[in-house]
Amino acid sequence: MFTGLSAFPLTPLRRDGRGGETVDDAAFVRLIDRLTAARVDSITALGSTGSAAYLDAAERAHVARLAVDHAGDVPVVVGIGALRTAHAVAHAEAAQRAGAAGLLLAPLTYQPLTDDEVVGLYRDVTAATALPVIVYDNPTTTRVTFSLDLYARIGALPGIASIKIPGVPEDPDRARDHVRAIRSVLPEHVTIGVSGDARAAAGLTAGCDAWYSVLAGTLPVPARRITDAVRQGRPEEATAESARLQPLWALFAAYGSIRVIAAVAEHLGLAPVDCLPLPLRGLTADQRADLARVVEQLVLAG
Amino acid sequence: MFTGLSAFPLTPLRRDGRGGETVDDAAFVRLIDRLTAARVDSITALGSTGSAAYLDAAERAHVARLAVDHAGDVPVVVGIGALRTAHAVAHAEAAQRAGAAGLLLAPLTYQPLTDDEVVGLYRDVTAATALPVIVYDNPTTTRVTFSLDLYARIGALPGIASIKIPGVPEDPDRARDHVRAIRSVLPEHVTIGVSGDARAAAGLTAGCDAWYSVLAGTLPVPARRITDAVRQGRPEEATAESARLQPLWALFAAYGSIRVIAAVAEHLGLAPVDCLPLPLRGLTADQRADLARVVEQLVLAG
Repeated sequence: MFTGLSAFPLTPLRRDGRGGETVDDAAFVRLIDRLTAARVDSITALGSTGSAAYLDAAERAHVARLAVDHAGDVPVVVGIGALRTAHAVAHAEAAQRAGAAGLLLAPLTYQPLTDDEVVGLYRDVTAATALPVIVYDNPTTTRVTFSLDLYARIGALPGIASIKIPGVPEDPDRARDHVRAIRSVLPEHVTIGVSGDARAAAGLTAGCDAWYSVLAGTLPVPARRITDAVRQGRPEEATAESARLQPLWALFAAYGSIRVIAAVAEHLGLAPVDCLPLPLRGLTADQRADLARVVEQLVLAG
Repeated sequence: MFTGLSAFPLTPLRRDGRGGETVDDAAFVRLIDRLTAARVDSITALGSTGSAAYLDAAERAHVARLAVDHAGDVPVVVGIGALRTAHAVAHAEAAQRAGAAGLLLAPLTYQPLTDDEVVGLYRDVTAATALPVIVYDNPTTTRVTFSLDLYARIGALPGIASIKIPGVPEDPDRARDHVRAIRSVLPEHVTIGVSGDARAAAGLTAGCDAWYSVLAGTLPVPARRITDAVRQGRPEEATAESARLQPLWALFAAYGSIRVIAAVAEHLGLAPVDCLPLPLRGLTADQRADLARVVEQLVLAG
């Protein structure tokens, strides 16, 4: 389950005009339907792209249930990251009740965490759940820097199934060495998945087992194409497809992938306008016009 | 109200042995009693030191009520920071119902925020509450960098009463220039308060109106001494007292002020052992031994 293409859908919200927002169930289910139709290998609901950090416990439990109920035979992983360990454990219990096949845990922080605290978080949560856990190494959102030593300490915990790494170096040889170095400190059953979509083709080519993909959550077809090309021994095709998507990666880098993919979904009518939780604001009108041109040129909607 | 010494108490938790923690009402009230006895100018409950980011809405409303109910005539400010704007607004409403005199708002982040998003957060929250708001500039916990331009844009919003800055430069002239530069972009009614306790004497001497103080939340007497010395025209006394506390500031820098002040409170019997919310772990046994020596040498308990 922790290999191949894992799609991270948005959790589209609808503003109520009184400062509140509610989950747009129909839009979310429509996204899930696209993912099952594209035969992604797994769906990770409530990742960073799924706005997990912004939703309350009831919303998260509801979204987990919606995902599982509409994913058919595609396994659903549920993000359970929370600032407090006890809340992450409660989200894990709710995800298990919803029928999740696995959990994704980012070490969310307010106070900067020590390595011992990060290890303690993973130890406490894996001890409290029977579901396999993906370690979410996302320094942009969590400010936790995972060293090889930290990967090793956490990877050794029973219940850890995969590590989601934030990317690989540009140079192919260095990328391969990087993945190999991480693998050397992990038990054999722990897979490595790349995130940072712009580096996904490079990461899969360098030996990553999975792509934890923002793009695939809204546009699964090109993501499926890149993943299949590498897995079927045609890495140059994956590289070419990733290069074709470069204008999109440039927007991801400029505005943040969540804002850009939300605007893509809004542009394609897959999510209501302003579908992100405040204080996050979508792209400006000018930025949206740029984005629309990029999307249309790439004929990404397919 | 947004001048002088504002004490930031811990919210002591008690572990239940099953992975959960509950607010230790008696310990919290004991801390509040110490603060009113020391005649602090205000109490800021649910600051960073008060673990606001880790508590759920019900716990936060409960702590706000406890603080107001036991603060007598000392005004209580309540921290309302949350990752989602709608949640910050809900915390503001609960704080107002509890009788808070003001609010403290940090721009908590998961996704890095743009300046426009930070301004939007303060605009949306101040528009939704009648209470005055302190802007909480804490780059260590929020990763938001406040430029002078950002101070100016937020300071101009109706409802903003004060800016909590993270410290001042070492050099006294540069410190004074720094405070003057911030003041020059703010409306006259907006006060400037220093945090980062090690720089508090310097900040007050440099012209800050307030000290938003971790130390004072547990050890109000030396904090009162520093604040009074500056306000009564004896800055050299404040500098000397701050220098005397240097061993404590060194521990703050090494382990994080929240872990150190929690260990101080635990050492003095003011909080149960391991009073912070997991994943935060208190100091190790060795670190506690160091801390105990420092506390005893400084005779801080007074």
